[in-house]
Amino acid sequence: MSEILDTRDIELFLEKADVIQIGARNMQNFELLKEVGAYDKPVLLKRGLSATIKEFLLSAEYIMSRGNCNVMLCERGIRTFETQYRNTLDLAAIPTLKELSHLPVIVDPSHATGKWDLVAPMSRAAVAAGTDGLLIEVHSNPECALCDGEESIKPSKFKTLMSDLRNIAKAVGREV
Amino acid sequence: MSEILDTRDIELFLEKADVIQIGARNMQNFELLKEVGAYDKPVLLKRGLSATIKEFLLSAEYIMSRGNCNVMLCERGIRTFETQYRNTLDLAAIPTLKELSHLPVIVDPSHATGKWDLVAPMSRAAVAAGTDGLLIEVHSNPECALCDGEESIKPSKFKTLMSDLRNIAKAVGREV
Amino acid sequence: MSEILDTRDIELFLEKADVIQIGARNMQNFELLKEVGAYDKPVLLKRGLSATIKEFLLSAEYIMSRGNCNVMLCERGIRTFETQYRNTLDLAAIPTLKELSHLPVIVDPSHATGKWDLVAPMSRAAVAAGTDGLLIEVHSNPECALCDGEESIKPSKFKTLMSDLRNIAKAVGREV
Amino acid sequence: MSEILDTRDIELFLEKADVIQIGARNMQNFELLKEVGAYDKPVLLKRGLSATIKEFLLSAEYIMSRGNCNVMLCERGIRTFETQYRNTLDLAAIPTLKELSHLPVIVDPSHATGKWDLVAPMSRAAVAAGTDGLLIEVHSNPECALCDGEESIKPSKFKTLMSDLRNIAKAVGREV
Repeated sequence: MSEILDTRDIELFLEKADVIQIGARNMQNFELLKEVGAYDKPVLLKRGLSATIKEFLLSAEYIMSRGNCNVMLCERGIRTFETQYRNTLDLAAIPTLKELSHLPVIVDPSHATGKWDLVAPMSRAAVAAGTDGLLIEVHSNPECALCDGEESIKPSKFKTLMSDLRNIAKAVGREV
Repeated sequence: MSEILDTRDIELFLEKADVIQIGARNMQNFELLKEVGAYDKPVLLKRGLSATIKEFLLSAEYIMSRGNCNVMLCERGIRTFETQYRNTLDLAAIPTLKELSHLPVIVDPSHATGKWDLVAPMSRAAVAAGTDGLLIEVHSNPECALCDGEESIKPSKFKTLMSDLRNIAKAVGREV
Repeated sequence: MSEILDTRDIELFLEKADVIQIGARNMQNFELLKEVGAYDKPVLLKRGLSATIKEFLLSAEYIMSRGNCNVMLCERGIRTFETQYRNTLDLAAIPTLKELSHLPVIVDPSHATGKWDLVAPMSRAAVAAGTDGLLIEVHSNPECALCDGEESIKPSKFKTLMSDLRNIAKAVGREV
Repeated sequence: MSEILDTRDIELFLEKADVIQIGARNMQNFELLKEVGAYDKPVLLKRGLSATIKEFLLSAEYIMSRGNCNVMLCERGIRTFETQYRNTLDLAAIPTLKELSHLPVIVDPSHATGKWDLVAPMSRAAVAAGTDGLLIEVHSNPECALCDGEESIKPSKFKTLMSDLRNIAKAVGREV
């Protein structure tokens, strides 16, 4: 998955990417939404930092109105007054988006919190709330990561987390 | 559990209540915090609608500084721009509060969301994120409830939910 | 003007204070609102940090419903994501509150911004937007003030500001 | 002035527009910022709905780093919990932006509030706070406007407003 930043790059993404990501800062870049909507390549659409649920769904409509219905919605935290973590992960968005649309809902606890020690509890909570997928930053040596080190977990922690998630998924009638 | 609103009522609460609740709107009513801090009656302190994690803990300190350490912290949603639900339930507060203090953390998904159909998924998420307890509104006939009907679930739904919560708790190494 | 924090102190305030202030953290302390509403002493009611215009007016109603209509509304900034200043001064509240009620509207630029160099421009803006009064922190030696030093202006600056405010007031058809 | 939405349209804007506007939803569309930065055409950059002052200035840097220093910053309201008006106009941004940069600061009270009756008081406040310019929607028949009718003022009101603004500007040592 790679993040597209400009309509002029669409050819490259169609050729090289399995999934095209539209980042939070481009959620209302309507020309970009329409451009990725013209092809059938899967799109992961991230919620803008101050986008309401309604605006989020309307941005997905921009893509789908051009014919591409392979859209995944990604909750990645919203901007609030709280400064303890980077953003506030809005998990009530999961059941709400699933009630209002048929699209799969993904959660990104790493970018939402910006803190590696919150990734595991928020991943567990997201699965319990019904998420269809997670984006988790993993790095074998987070202290030396070129970027996103502070929010990355180590492979050993990831393995334990996956085992927890399987159990929680089973408890809510799903499978990982 | 009953909510105290005024320092003059303390005698009544000491006599009649098992747990004294300080509501979100009184989280920074410092005279009230000091008053309940002077006794050993358990106190449930609700987070203010725009209170930071730090301010929340400082309010708990007001109570404990008078000697009463029977304090429970209750996350009940914060005020954001989102209007789809009453407030935004901030579940990252659970691991954060538990990291920064030794106090038990309770979650109130009913008042946070104001919507009965979000109570079950948010309760499941709260347990998965490590909450020590839940406040859930249950009513046998929510349509006719004098208040809080929209956020109350029926006893049958509550029974199913409790079974889910037991399984999730087990999956994260705890017991309900 | 002094800030009342507890219903038990009402006698003292009736005797000693010219104006009773209800602070932002007590805007929804309904017992306190009802208590000050039972007398005819003027009340300055500060807007809560995350109180909507509607909630602010409803709190004023609590006071007035007991008979005391000597209520002044004070805008003192709301809590937002912006961290450059303490709070975000919401000056659109001035014409809105005056449209929705007959009560005088006061602005407190000192506590809203928490920065002495924003006090003058925000005071000028508040008068231009139609405020009925200002609360301005002045200190002859702000660096040594026991509290609120960072948001206090010196007497010489205050004198210049007052002259500006008189001119702006005249420009909008009012008098200082 | 016209709003550019896509990097592919730059030629058209260079030819036809006197000022290129970057809208609030594109404030962090970095490819678009770099594109308009490569020419010397004046750019009006609107603040994103949840952009901090710092992020706003960093977006301006993206443009200027390519050589184009003809950048105007436009405050047009931020997203908060208040629902009485469309957005909360943050007038403290004016002196703050002017302190932190040398760029001119423009205010758009029409889009910020979304209400015609708030345009005049907020325009007066903006001038008193030191704005270098205003964007005001005027329409001879707002009830029938195809868009933005609710926030447009009539020419007669505009004329009166301009006279007020001239007087306020004079009061703060400036000229309209």
